[in-house]
Amino acid sequence: MQVHKFDIRDVKVELRMIRTMCLDRATKQFLPECSVAAISDMVARPEVVVWTDVSDPTSQDFLDLAEEFGFHPLSIEDCQHGHQRPKIEEFPGYYFIVMYEAHLNAEQDLELRELSVFLGKDFLVTVHAKPINAIDTARRLWPKWLDRAKEGSGLLAYLLIDAIVDDYMPVLDSVSETMDDLEDQIFEVFKPESIENIFYIKKQLLQMRRMVTPLRDVFNTMLRREQPIFARETHIYFHDVFDHVIRVADTIDTLRDMLASIMDAYLSVSNNRMSMVMKRLTSISTILMSVTLIAGIYGMNFDVMPELRWPFGYAYVLGLILLVAASLTVFLKKVKWL
Amino acid sequence: MQVHKFDIRDVKVELRMIRTMCLDRATKQFLPECSVAAISDMVARPEVVVWTDVSDPTSQDFLDLAEEFGFHPLSIEDCQHGHQRPKIEEFPGYYFIVMYEAHLNAEQDLELRELSVFLGKDFLVTVHAKPINAIDTARRLWPKWLDRAKEGSGLLAYLLIDAIVDDYMPVLDSVSETMDDLEDQIFEVFKPESIENIFYIKKQLLQMRRMVTPLRDVFNTMLRREQPIFARETHIYFHDVFDHVIRVADTIDTLRDMLASIMDAYLSVSNNRMSMVMKRLTSISTILMSVTLIAGIYGMNFDVMPELRWPFGYAYVLGLILLVAASLTVFLKKVKWL
Amino acid sequence: MQVHKFDIRDVKVELRMIRTMCLDRATKQFLPECSVAAISDMVARPEVVVWTDVSDPTSQDFLDLAEEFGFHPLSIEDCQHGHQRPKIEEFPGYYFIVMYEAHLNAEQDLELRELSVFLGKDFLVTVHAKPINAIDTARRLWPKWLDRAKEGSGLLAYLLIDAIVDDYMPVLDSVSETMDDLEDQIFEVFKPESIENIFYIKKQLLQMRRMVTPLRDVFNTMLRREQPIFARETHIYFHDVFDHVIRVADTIDTLRDMLASIMDAYLSVSNNRMSMVMKRLTSISTILMSVTLIAGIYGMNFDVMPELRWPFGYAYVLGLILLVAASLTVFLKKVKWL
Amino acid sequence: MQVHKFDIRDVKVELRMIRTMCLDRATKQFLPECSVAAISDMVARPEVVVWTDVSDPTSQDFLDLAEEFGFHPLSIEDCQHGHQRPKIEEFPGYYFIVMYEAHLNAEQDLELRELSVFLGKDFLVTVHAKPINAIDTARRLWPKWLDRAKEGSGLLAYLLIDAIVDDYMPVLDSVSETMDDLEDQIFEVFKPESIENIFYIKKQLLQMRRMVTPLRDVFNTMLRREQPIFARETHIYFHDVFDHVIRVADTIDTLRDMLASIMDAYLSVSNNRMSMVMKRLTSISTILMSVTLIAGIYGMNFDVMPELRWPFGYAYVLGLILLVAASLTVFLKKVKWL
Amino acid sequence: MQVHKFDIRDVKVELRMIRTMCLDRATKQFLPECSVAAISDMVARPEVVVWTDVSDPTSQDFLDLAEEFGFHPLSIEDCQHGHQRPKIEEFPGYYFIVMYEAHLNAEQDLELRELSVFLGKDFLVTVHAKPINAIDTARRLWPKWLDRAKEGSGLLAYLLIDAIVDDYMPVLDSVSETMDDLEDQIFEVFKPESIENIFYIKKQLLQMRRMVTPLRDVFNTMLRREQPIFARETHIYFHDVFDHVIRVADTIDTLRDMLASIMDAYLSVSNNRMSMVMKRLTSISTILMSVTLIAGIYGMNFDVMPELRWPFGYAYVLGLILLVAASLTVFLKKVKWL
Repeated sequence: MQVHKFDIRDVKVELRMIRTMCLDRATKQFLPECSVAAISDMVARPEVVVWTDVSDPTSQDFLDLAEEFGFHPLSIEDCQHGHQRPKIEEFPGYYFIVMYEAHLNAEQDLELRELSVFLGKDFLVTVHAKPINAIDTARRLWPKWLDRAKEGSGLLAYLLIDAIVDDYMPVLDSVSETMDDLEDQIFEVFKPESIENIFYIKKQLLQMRRMVTPLRDVFNTMLRREQPIFARETHIYFHDVFDHVIRVADTIDTLRDMLASIMDAYLSVSNNRMSMVMKRLTSISTILMSVTLIAGIYGMNFDVMPELRWPFGYAYVLGLILLVAASLTVFLKKVKWL
Repeated sequence: MQVHKFDIRDVKVELRMIRTMCLDRATKQFLPECSVAAISDMVARPEVVVWTDVSDPTSQDFLDLAEEFGFHPLSIEDCQHGHQRPKIEEFPGYYFIVMYEAHLNAEQDLELRELSVFLGKDFLVTVHAKPINAIDTARRLWPKWLDRAKEGSGLLAYLLIDAIVDDYMPVLDSVSETMDDLEDQIFEVFKPESIENIFYIKKQLLQMRRMVTPLRDVFNTMLRREQPIFARETHIYFHDVFDHVIRVADTIDTLRDMLASIMDAYLSVSNNRMSMVMKRLTSISTILMSVTLIAGIYGMNFDVMPELRWPFGYAYVLGLILLVAASLTVFLKKVKWL
Repeated sequence: MQVHKFDIRDVKVELRMIRTMCLDRATKQFLPECSVAAISDMVARPEVVVWTDVSDPTSQDFLDLAEEFGFHPLSIEDCQHGHQRPKIEEFPGYYFIVMYEAHLNAEQDLELRELSVFLGKDFLVTVHAKPINAIDTARRLWPKWLDRAKEGSGLLAYLLIDAIVDDYMPVLDSVSETMDDLEDQIFEVFKPESIENIFYIKKQLLQMRRMVTPLRDVFNTMLRREQPIFARETHIYFHDVFDHVIRVADTIDTLRDMLASIMDAYLSVSNNRMSMVMKRLTSISTILMSVTLIAGIYGMNFDVMPELRWPFGYAYVLGLILLVAASLTVFLKKVKWL
Repeated sequence: MQVHKFDIRDVKVELRMIRTMCLDRATKQFLPECSVAAISDMVARPEVVVWTDVSDPTSQDFLDLAEEFGFHPLSIEDCQHGHQRPKIEEFPGYYFIVMYEAHLNAEQDLELRELSVFLGKDFLVTVHAKPINAIDTARRLWPKWLDRAKEGSGLLAYLLIDAIVDDYMPVLDSVSETMDDLEDQIFEVFKPESIENIFYIKKQLLQMRRMVTPLRDVFNTMLRREQPIFARETHIYFHDVFDHVIRVADTIDTLRDMLASIMDAYLSVSNNRMSMVMKRLTSISTILMSVTLIAGIYGMNFDVMPELRWPFGYAYVLGLILLVAASLTVFLKKVKWL
Repeated sequence: MQVHKFDIRDVKVELRMIRTMCLDRATKQFLPECSVAAISDMVARPEVVVWTDVSDPTSQDFLDLAEEFGFHPLSIEDCQHGHQRPKIEEFPGYYFIVMYEAHLNAEQDLELRELSVFLGKDFLVTVHAKPINAIDTARRLWPKWLDRAKEGSGLLAYLLIDAIVDDYMPVLDSVSETMDDLEDQIFEVFKPESIENIFYIKKQLLQMRRMVTPLRDVFNTMLRREQPIFARETHIYFHDVFDHVIRVADTIDTLRDMLASIMDAYLSVSNNRMSMVMKRLTSISTILMSVTLIAGIYGMNFDVMPELRWPFGYAYVLGLILLVAASLTVFLKKVKWL
């Protein structure tokens, strides 16, 4: 690791993409933001906790990371290619963690943003292509937890992961509300289009589940194995996050079950309504055919048809038609076919 | 923990929200109800079992709890935010337990009321926003079990949890009865609206399951790990409650299976009835069309149509119409289409 | 345990409810039936195996049992309340087991009769509200196994449980036969009512499963844990019963799968038949409408309509009607719509 | 075990039912076929491997087996009653194994033939009510493996079980072919009767699964536990059979999944075709009703209806009818309703 | 192993089928391609890593392999018969691995090509009937990894397996795209034929799953057991491949869930559209029947029917017909039946 000459322009360019915060655990003071080239020197100082955040990284950024922190090519590759499943992998000297942050935009479309984390004993590296809210939250909270600074990168990882997991619940709450609306759309004012909403919610829940279920394994790995990275004290915090992950996973499963019920209800109500309409229309046809028959009979050309000669024959037949139509209507209403 | 000056007004206000019962294990006598500020002194006395019940807690109440019992901020936070899943979490010196009490109101709506329990070796703290029946039951029963007073907070926890779990079964019995009614509604007097009932029962069972299934893990944790909190003797009681939890969980699963069958039956009977109606209506149409054809034929204007000249042609055709209608009706009845 | 004075009337009353058989393991002789009050003395003799059977027990009977055998209040309570799930619970000095005997009455209704068993090293207590066939079977077989008398209560428990489990298979065979009938009802002579039978069989299988599945755990507990109660020799017998339980459970699962298939087939055949009927009725309508159109055309009042003047116009139009109807019938038969 | 006098007639009778092959492991020579009574002597010689095959056994045969080999009454009972699930049970000195051979007859009906195997260190006893092909295969192959004769009964068991398991795959291949035919019946030339085939294949797969799934446990027991019966060398062969069993089980699961898809496709295509037919028939009705209306209008008896007086009025109305019918047909074809 | 005389023609023939690459681990140099007969000599040299690739093997090839490498007959047999499930089996001195490469041809048909691998400490043998892309990839990459040459056959196996597993994802991406198209076909422009596509994708996913799921066990076996074959260093690479396999398996499961949703949506939309069409057609019928009734009434032959004598009676009735038809149309549009 050669020593770079400090160049202010170099820093400026980097500032957009790579930000490094350094905390001195002994003095509980933040050091001034350092350049990329200086990171490896910081990491080498045992009393300093280094957090490097890389947003929208370029190929050069990955080369720099590999050089400054000495990351294994496989983890750099996974980080660069993206589209990994949530996971934790142990590499010599650090863990490589992949998580997703959930975003719901105004149209209720779910967007999952990948966050790669390299977690070492004294450093944390976060890499992401899109803005991650949890990064800002952790950056804001870290200085407030200085009294627990001696716990090192574990505390920082907790702040970050807790912020990500806490954002899952509002997304599910929003899904849950949409499902309540769906229920109304089915039982109160039936809308055939509901099927599309059901389908898109199902898709969202599938995405959420795919993102949350493997997290359980991530936390199991973090909590079960003897972890020199986390202080004993930090454990209890991760247990709390783990519990929240399980709650999120349970909620997803419950919502899926509920959605299946809503789907069943939708199909059944849709069927019932269709049946009702068909019964009504066919009943109306039957009434019309009955009275048409009467008109047909008096349209016959028999020489001898006494009614045709009656002065009030026409009035009589119109009355008959109304009578038949009315009594059939009453009858069909009574048997609930109309 | 500073010593408060005793102030009768202060106690009165607290009585509404925080009640503390203290039992002297040695003398098997209850001590007079103590103020919030005095709790920590009571907890410090090893021969005293302290039960503090906090209903509808304010932020100040939580601060007091944290101060008097020394609870970890994470458990206080979970307790304050609520909406936790049923769980047991180990904190230094105590367990934090979340359970739900099931209430069925007059309209058969299921309400789940959250109860947070802090269970220490010599103390039990219960926190709840709404009235919990089991609290009253435990309060009533505790003085009757004074001969087993030496078992400490474990016995008290048993009385409380047993009361909660025992209340699940009547709720399920009520659900089961509603399902029997549904069965009648489907096989005896079919009602299309049953689908809504099926849906709401499904929702209730989902809620119940979400509340009961994690309880199994709670009890496993309580019973499997070496527990310094419970005396050996108390174990057998918790085993009994555990068994009831499993029975409740089994019943929920059976009811869900049964409900799925009811849903299938509903759909099938609904389909059969719709088929029957459509077959009937279409059969009636066919009859009407047949006789209308006869009337149509004799409405034709051919010069030579012998029947039209018959003196009893009209009577003949009316007879023909009745004959055709009657024979078609008989035939369609025979093939079960009408 | 005070010594009761022997009173013949007292015994007579008890005989209806409580019967106690005592076998001397050393001499392989049965002792004369003993009174309730004498049970504790018998149990105290290590060479005697005591079997007390309590049918339709009263509150007093439970008090007597608790006194004579020293049963734990929790097990007495479970036994008294009934409606337990099949289970085995370890209490100091004995196991408390709950099982159900399956009865099919003449209308093929399944009745499950609860049997509570207290199984100690040298005693067996059976409690049941309704007659249990397996009790009679075990009572008949026990004297025939005197050469294995030294194995104590384990052998007796085997005889009893084996009799219960062996009675499950005929019930399932009967269910299986009913299902074969259902198959015929669906594929040969379709009956819409089959849905009710399917539903009731499903319910029976659910009940059976609920009764059998927990038995696996019962046997696992009996066979896996070091059991001082059973001699090594008895183990092989319980293994055999365990195997039968698994076979019963497998059969239930297979029948459930089969029933699901029957349900699918029912729905599909029901649908096909409905389709067939609707196609036929609508095809007939189409034919009738076609020929009605012909009649309608010749019912028009145009001044110039040559056919109307033909001497055989009427015959021609009747022929045309028959021709059109016949060719449409042939065509619709050919495309399988009629 | 008394020594029987050799009697040729006695042997003849036995030959039909009980055949015993004895192989001298040391000399790698087969001994002459021996009588039932001589079996126990053979089994007593450590260098001899004895294979006794009992087909269509009588009660006497079971008594002989119990006497000659000293089998436990429970295993004899299971063997005699039959209808066991595939299983392996350990008895003192031998294993009792139950398997089923699959036969597909010309009508593609699946028949499962039970085979009971008693497998001891130096003997193998096979009992079956119907002819088992694998018996013949093993009898044919055994003499060819004389160079591995020292491995004793394990090799023989391998030859037998491998022959049985190898016969499962062709049965599944045949099922798979039938399913391909079903696919054609659904997507190319739809046949409503396919539902019966789907049902019967489902039943066959259920039977196959019930027979194969427990086999996995059988092999796990054979391979996992320290087995003094099998030489180390034989293990690799049983591993191979185990692998085939897993492949068969996987194939069954895949076929079941596939069949569920076929069922879904069947229902959907059936529905689509029904929809098509109903749409067509109803469209035709609409056309017929439209033109009937025209005829009806010109059948009215108004004094002043100019068209009726036109010389070509009749031709005009026939043209109008054709025009309306044709344009409606074109329109309905265009919207795919006809 | 006799020494063959080198014969150029002999080599030429073999080149088509059997290619052997030999790498000297010490010098990091490739040796000249060697003939089949020379393989065993190469394998005997500890510093040489031998990769023999056999494509479209003949019976003689299998004999040669067995002779040169000393493979167990069972593995040779499995390799020769093919149609194995993906698996890993341990044989003395080597592992026998079966995998499948996924190919999507231009018509999106999935083809799975079997690859058998014999993996020893210093050799790798690949056998396949059809061309395998991963073979070419591994052949191209091996020379580039010479700096890690000392890791022997493990590295080579990694290159090969990684290439196979990496090819799964594009296949699934293509399936995923087809499913997106299906979604459009269902919600935007409904096509009844989609059911066939759904069915074929289901089949492809079943095939993929059958091929990928057992791979997890393969990697578990490779990674969990103490493996003298792989250097510690190679482990981290196999962990990476394992992770990709899990991602592929997860993706398959998600796609299956998604496809089930698509199927549900298809059925529901199909149903809705059918309902719409039937409601419309029946509504049109009702309108036509209503106006036909009017025509029928004025076709009656009563002597006294004032309207018939009106000069504008005809115009009035035509107007009435239009009015009735228009108002019914408006009404039915309003209730969404038309």
